Amino acid sequence: MKKTITVVGLGLIGGSLAIALRGFEDYEIVGVDVSQPTLRFAAEHGVADRVTEDAGAVIPGADVVILALHPRGIVRFLSEYRDRFQPGALVTDVCGIKTTVMAGAEVLPPEVDFIGCHPMAGTEFSGIEHAFGDMFRDSHLILTPRETSTPAHIALMERMAAHLGCKDVYKTTPEAHDAMIAYTSQMMHIIAVSVCDDQRLFSCKGFEGSSFRGCTRVAALDVGLWTELFSMNTPALLEVLDRLLENLQSYRDTLAAADAGTLSQKLAYSAARKRQMDLPGPDLLA
Amino acid sequence: MKKTITVVGLGLIGGSLAIALRGFEDYEIVGVDVSQPTLRFAAEHGVADRVTEDAGAVIPGADVVILALHPRGIVRFLSEYRDRFQPGALVTDVCGIKTTVMAGAEVLPPEVDFIGCHPMAGTEFSGIEHAFGDMFRDSHLILTPRETSTPAHIALMERMAAHLGCKDVYKTTPEAHDAMIAYTSQMMHIIAVSVCDDQRLFSCKGFEGSSFRGCTRVAALDVGLWTELFSMNTPALLEVLDRLLENLQSYRDTLAAADAGTLSQKLAYSAARKRQMDLPGPDLLA
Repeated sequence: MKKTITVVGLGLIGGSLAIALRGFEDYEIVGVDVSQPTLRFAAEHGVADRVTEDAGAVIPGADVVILALHPRGIVRFLSEYRDRFQPGALVTDVCGIKTTVMAGAEVLPPEVDFIGCHPMAGTEFSGIEHAFGDMFRDSHLILTPRETSTPAHIALMERMAAHLGCKDVYKTTPEAHDAMIAYTSQMMHIIAVSVCDDQRLFSCKGFEGSSFRGCTRVAALDVGLWTELFSMNTPALLEVLDRLLENLQSYRDTLAAADAGTLSQKLAYSAARKRQMDLPGPDLLA
Repeated sequence: MKKTITVVGLGLIGGSLAIALRGFEDYEIVGVDVSQPTLRFAAEHGVADRVTEDAGAVIPGADVVILALHPRGIVRFLSEYRDRFQPGALVTDVCGIKTTVMAGAEVLPPEVDFIGCHPMAGTEFSGIEHAFGDMFRDSHLILTPRETSTPAHIALMERMAAHLGCKDVYKTTPEAHDAMIAYTSQMMHIIAVSVCDDQRLFSCKGFEGSSFRGCTRVAALDVGLWTELFSMNTPALLEVLDRLLENLQSYRDTLAAADAGTLSQKLAYSAARKRQMDLPGPDLLA
């Protein structure tokens, strides 16, 4: 009998995962969602091998369950279905906060493993109609295994990552993940929305180039999701935001002092850091 | 006899322009640079129809001269060659600051036209080896004509823009250009270098996704060029930076207040602005 991977939540990420996982080893991909239009879209577009609205009917038969819900939804689902998972099952998720999710997974019985997962991929859109199987190609995948997670489960996650086309897999703690993501992801979103709050936004059309589009792309964010993510990681986010405010203020003051020599030195310092940071990553030069 | 477009400065932008302009109507494309390696590269790769280090020999025969130098270099070139341009010639440039350049063009005799030009395209690299003819495809091109610029010259610039593959051409004043560009371009560069000044930069490898790459890409900037650009537009840049600092601080304070309702409202406001701003530009959704 085929083994089963059940993806709960067929939004942008869950839908893309289901598409990308089709054909993975000998697994059948089952999609679960509560929305009828989403299920219809998934069925019509072959997003999974089969789809259902009835999580209770498929969770007990799933070898792997991927929770592609918002953080609070994941915690709720784990609590509601804690006794329905198959003994020996691997449960994982895709969400951008790991301490809250790993704490929520404590409700699971000891024979059900949970490995936190965060694929560093996505777009500024939501919903299954924007899902695409190539989403994870060349992106990082971060895992936060439990101390008790089995090597077999970790190896399974790594094979799934390879099937998704991920560039590499990093394993870390939930705390380290959340501290790092405050800088590399959450702060980028706060910058993007802050730039879009400027009074010039609408009048600047026709004057924007790739740097503006690159910086502000993610401002069109999923408000509910990001309210949760920011709220669950506030201390780490405040720490990096305060450093950003200092670093911006330092550039501002150097500009105001009209000292081209100092400005040039500062720019040389920052540009060299950026070049050094990118060095081993030729994909970053694309 | 063929008419001539002379591109002075075969760096990233000038080299890309020369490549992209080849085959434009019945013009011969002549490339000028002071660097022998650059000229050799240009000759070997067919960057222009012919190349030379001797600007003085080709300027008098040029129907169009495109100055693809740094701002101070443009001003110096205009001053040095003011009496060498052909009567009726059109001189233009490619640089990201227009007030300084248009003021520098005042030295030209009245029979030589100058139309400021800023193609909103580029990469974070420098030098002819990174030049490519598709650079300007789907980007905006901004013109700052003089009041005395002839309709024939403006039409010629528009035909060149179409040949480059530009999406559209905007005409504005040097002052309006510089104020707008402080927001859409210069501020993006200050953000990028400030983000790269964070102590976490090198340790975050493996945790960065497309939002981080999109925001910080331009931090690897050409230090000499951007020192000039920032120094020539400081008041406008300070104005938008001060608004950014306020908007970031407002998000920071909302986060610190741990009020999810207010945070959600703020995010909804900013995200809606971003979506509204992008609406008529389907290319922005790519």
